[in-house]
Amino acid sequence: MKIYCNQRKLATSINTVFKASSNKTAMPILECILITAYGNNIILTANNLELGIESTMEADIVQEGLVALEAKLFGEIIRKMPDEELEITLLKNDTVTIASGKSKFTIVSKPGHDFPKLPSVQMQKGYTVSQPALREMINQTIFSTAQEDSRPIFMGEMFHIEQNTFNLVSVDGFRISYRQMPINNEFGEIKSVVPGKTLSEITKILSSEPQEMVTMYFDTNHVLFDLGTSKVVSRLLDGEFLSYNQMFSSDYDTQIIVDCKEFLMCIERASVISREGQKNPIKIALNTDQMVISSNTNLGTSVEELVINLHGKNLEIAFNPKYLIDVLKVIEDAEIVINFLSVMEPCIIQPKIGNAYKYLILPIRVKDKENA
Amino acid sequence: MKIYCNQRKLATSINTVFKASSNKTAMPILECILITAYGNNIILTANNLELGIESTMEADIVQEGLVALEAKLFGEIIRKMPDEELEITLLKNDTVTIASGKSKFTIVSKPGHDFPKLPSVQMQKGYTVSQPALREMINQTIFSTAQEDSRPIFMGEMFHIEQNTFNLVSVDGFRISYRQMPINNEFGEIKSVVPGKTLSEITKILSSEPQEMVTMYFDTNHVLFDLGTSKVVSRLLDGEFLSYNQMFSSDYDTQIIVDCKEFLMCIERASVISREGQKNPIKIALNTDQMVISSNTNLGTSVEELVINLHGKNLEIAFNPKYLIDVLKVIEDAEIVINFLSVMEPCIIQPKIGNAYKYLILPIRVKDKENA
Repeated sequence: MKIYCNQRKLATSINTVFKASSNKTAMPILECILITAYGNNIILTANNLELGIESTMEADIVQEGLVALEAKLFGEIIRKMPDEELEITLLKNDTVTIASGKSKFTIVSKPGHDFPKLPSVQMQKGYTVSQPALREMINQTIFSTAQEDSRPIFMGEMFHIEQNTFNLVSVDGFRISYRQMPINNEFGEIKSVVPGKTLSEITKILSSEPQEMVTMYFDTNHVLFDLGTSKVVSRLLDGEFLSYNQMFSSDYDTQIIVDCKEFLMCIERASVISREGQKNPIKIALNTDQMVISSNTNLGTSVEELVINLHGKNLEIAFNPKYLIDVLKVIEDAEIVINFLSVMEPCIIQPKIGNAYKYLILPIRVKDKENA
Repeated sequence: MKIYCNQRKLATSINTVFKASSNKTAMPILECILITAYGNNIILTANNLELGIESTMEADIVQEGLVALEAKLFGEIIRKMPDEELEITLLKNDTVTIASGKSKFTIVSKPGHDFPKLPSVQMQKGYTVSQPALREMINQTIFSTAQEDSRPIFMGEMFHIEQNTFNLVSVDGFRISYRQMPINNEFGEIKSVVPGKTLSEITKILSSEPQEMVTMYFDTNHVLFDLGTSKVVSRLLDGEFLSYNQMFSSDYDTQIIVDCKEFLMCIERASVISREGQKNPIKIALNTDQMVISSNTNLGTSVEELVINLHGKNLEIAFNPKYLIDVLKVIEDAEIVINFLSVMEPCIIQPKIGNAYKYLILPIRVKDKENA
């Protein structure tokens, strides 16, 4: 194998695939990036068997071939090279030289054909959305995937495509985050749970240009995100997901409209006083035209007043402030609607108009004596 | 005590003194910031008994007084407050209220008179330099203070003021960093060693405005840096410092002139290959008009060629790349002069013109067989 390519493009390509390479594993080949030189392109591939990423770039291929290079070393060398044309050559003794101008590296390689292929996913039935839209949907829901693997299925997000709606849902034991957007669906319903780790990596690759599209292909065990020059393949999670639709009741006894950013700042301040451990609830008293947010811990007390628009009954209720902060941080609307049923039942945060998002948060039960 | 003050100015002031507060100590009062309200000012003070910082700001003092508040909590509350006027009041029950608009915190306090006073330093004999100049001198030398306390004196930097020159010197077992600048000296020679931790904190406070001055006062055991609105007091280190002047020989058998940034990039690349542990030397072969930098480890080999201007003998010598990188990173000159005596003796890096800086680095002995 012998290729010439641009240093900066190669560094970008390595950066795209790098996160799918393993870090200390029983299979050292998984710590590598595979370089495949063929036609007018090189394809870089990393694959930790859960998640695989490949990235294609143009190059001048003098001799086709494939070789695997330790990802961290390969990345560091390419990043430090001058922004010029690089020559990469696989020698007969299985070493690889990387040269540019008066700099030359010689490093050991592993045989390219030892590198595990990415799982093949059928690419007939694709669902296409814009890359920044998918990124936004993931960013606005991923924070409530479960972090503990007592129920592995909840460590992922449900991709639920039905009719012409794409629903993305995550749930841990205490809250549900839901986003939806229209989608062109020619192929029927999809219900697949994609691991949170995959989604967290893919948000780093997704473009912010609205005209850049991503097509998703779902197989029995895998999903493939086709971004054009790069592809991400991930296994899916097995198990029974929550029937999330039934959880979002539209009934309420108390409904408020509140300024989202002001509400966020009040809760962030109130949570300063509860910083030791996340378990200190903040209390929210909802009255006709004001909300009083209070926090009382061994560090002191905090009281915040905020103007609201209330329909229905007054209510006193308590929440883990982190759960409210996570949601309020990702909402871009100026004002939001929050529905409450009772002190024991979850609140539901939603837009004033439309149903692009819904967030359900369970309250914390506070003993009456503590309330006094 | 009752005061009104600006939120943003108070947050800046807290930020200035914060690093001198202790983090977990046997004396909880040292985890506090002392607020002293007097006349038209409040003074914030933090003091961990090694290092003390105070910062003065204007405020509207309704009732004078002093109180100590836990630094981390006080800082977090003030940072999160809206950018408006704050009211801070010490109540009779020793709690303090911090209020702004519809936000109000009530937190516990400690008696202000329990807070240890900063050591008093005689302020007759001051040495004044511009703040960015002192910051630059510290940044260009602090990296070679010793990190281990086997010889505590070397964990600081020598402030040596003689005649009209201010010399700043740091030394660990392997290298010496030296910077000098002119200074107006009316009071005789100073030889004091200031702890590296103090210097690292003070660089964060020193202004980048050339017209802002700092005056240094040296006492037997302490130094005071007077920055105007803030003051930093630190203990000095005891012990015998190196007679650094004798170390910088002007003799050489090999002298090169080299482009500083190109040399840096070559060494950074060569050090990629020696990343496991810092102990892998890089070899430098100096020939009439070129330098060859090579590195050879179990990861592979790297060879770099660089144009130089050489006077004297050819030479092959080896260095810890980190020590060269530390120096080359802080030098702003385009070209530098490096003097060598032999493969066993230190090199000295200096400017082409003048003597604003000198850096001495010991080589690493490489066995001849390894050289082959």
